[in-house]
Amino acid sequence: MDAHAESTQTTPALDTHVLQRSAEHLAEKYAGIFSPETVERYVFESYATLSRTARVRTHLASIAAHFADNRLRALGQSQGKIDSGVPQVLFVCVHNIGRSQIAAALLAHYAAGDVEVRSAGSLPQSDVHPLAVDVLAERGIDLTGAYPKPLTDDVVRAADYVVTMGCGDACPVYPGKRYLDWDVSDPADQTIDGVRDIVDDMEVRVRQFWSEIQREVTR
Amino acid sequence: MDAHAESTQTTPALDTHVLQRSAEHLAEKYAGIFSPETVERYVFESYATLSRTARVRTHLASIAAHFADNRLRALGQSQGKIDSGVPQVLFVCVHNIGRSQIAAALLAHYAAGDVEVRSAGSLPQSDVHPLAVDVLAERGIDLTGAYPKPLTDDVVRAADYVVTMGCGDACPVYPGKRYLDWDVSDPADQTIDGVRDIVDDMEVRVRQFWSEIQREVTR
Repeated sequence: MDAHAESTQTTPALDTHVLQRSAEHLAEKYAGIFSPETVERYVFESYATLSRTARVRTHLASIAAHFADNRLRALGQSQGKIDSGVPQVLFVCVHNIGRSQIAAALLAHYAAGDVEVRSAGSLPQSDVHPLAVDVLAERGIDLTGAYPKPLTDDVVRAADYVVTMGCGDACPVYPGKRYLDWDVSDPADQTIDGVRDIVDDMEVRVRQFWSEIQREVTR
Repeated sequence: MDAHAESTQTTPALDTHVLQRSAEHLAEKYAGIFSPETVERYVFESYATLSRTARVRTHLASIAAHFADNRLRALGQSQGKIDSGVPQVLFVCVHNIGRSQIAAALLAHYAAGDVEVRSAGSLPQSDVHPLAVDVLAERGIDLTGAYPKPLTDDVVRAADYVVTMGCGDACPVYPGKRYLDWDVSDPADQTIDGVRDIVDDMEVRVRQFWSEIQREVTR
């Protein structure tokens, strides 16, 4: 096979080491809930999934571990093995770089621990919209740690409320959930003023949504 | 929450039913190897993954079940729980609609059961290239059942040989595998004559590759 070039990549091998360590750490965290094999699968498949759309690959292994942790928690919740005690909300848009990230950050901000919020994209892009990060920073909300991630089945299953924004029928429909569809403008190609308007619109929706969740919870 | 439109989708609910049935069927097939929970996760996550890039959603649940079956088999092989007895080859390109599909079909054709062949895309597109289907049909090779699928960790783990074509460093590097990179033209935007030339080129590579695999196996 001498005629073929063999790979000389080193970064993926380093990533494999980080992923392996993360899998061991998460296996301890989820001991009694998931087998080490399941945890390892989640870590490595989360990495493979993020690799498909991540442009910047620095810290990709750590991000994948974070994503796997969040998905395992969602899976445990949907199977009744983990009880978070608060409503679960999932925001979905196409790229998970604008609308769903903004909505998730706003609701997490207003509800301050009284809901668990996730976001995902039907076809995630590489980076969170920089102007969305800026406009939320103006309002004291930190979006710098957010990363785009694909819509997975586990996070849909864990959700009590699924809010879709412009992503068509990409989200599977399961019984026992509230599905909502919001008609919100896309911040892509907007100026910072345009993004501010979108965040204003989203703030009204999210505040109203949050009071409705609170009403339903206390009903 | 009356101000929000609720979803009235019905197809995903039907798909859920098909997926559930497929999961039960596959759980029987993999009894003693994987738990029913693991099998169900694979079926539903495979569906979620394919949903992100499938344009035509007809038969998507059946395709997802097929994909999950193949991934579970790969996982069992990589964990030493399933012994296929033949070399495992994975072809990877960007979209899994042209080059990797052609190479996989050609090798499966020449090796006729003496290898197990898979293909995947670092960023799969919606449909296999129609001219690739036509040109392979001219040579008696049926590609009509092929579908584009994302690169997952399990199929990389199962592989003895990984052949990449134009997909950069998307493929994780694990020890104990042969990694090869082929510089093959992309059939996208080619005329049928252009695609015939590409398949000719690929035939030479695949035949040579197959004799090399045979030499290594008998060594």
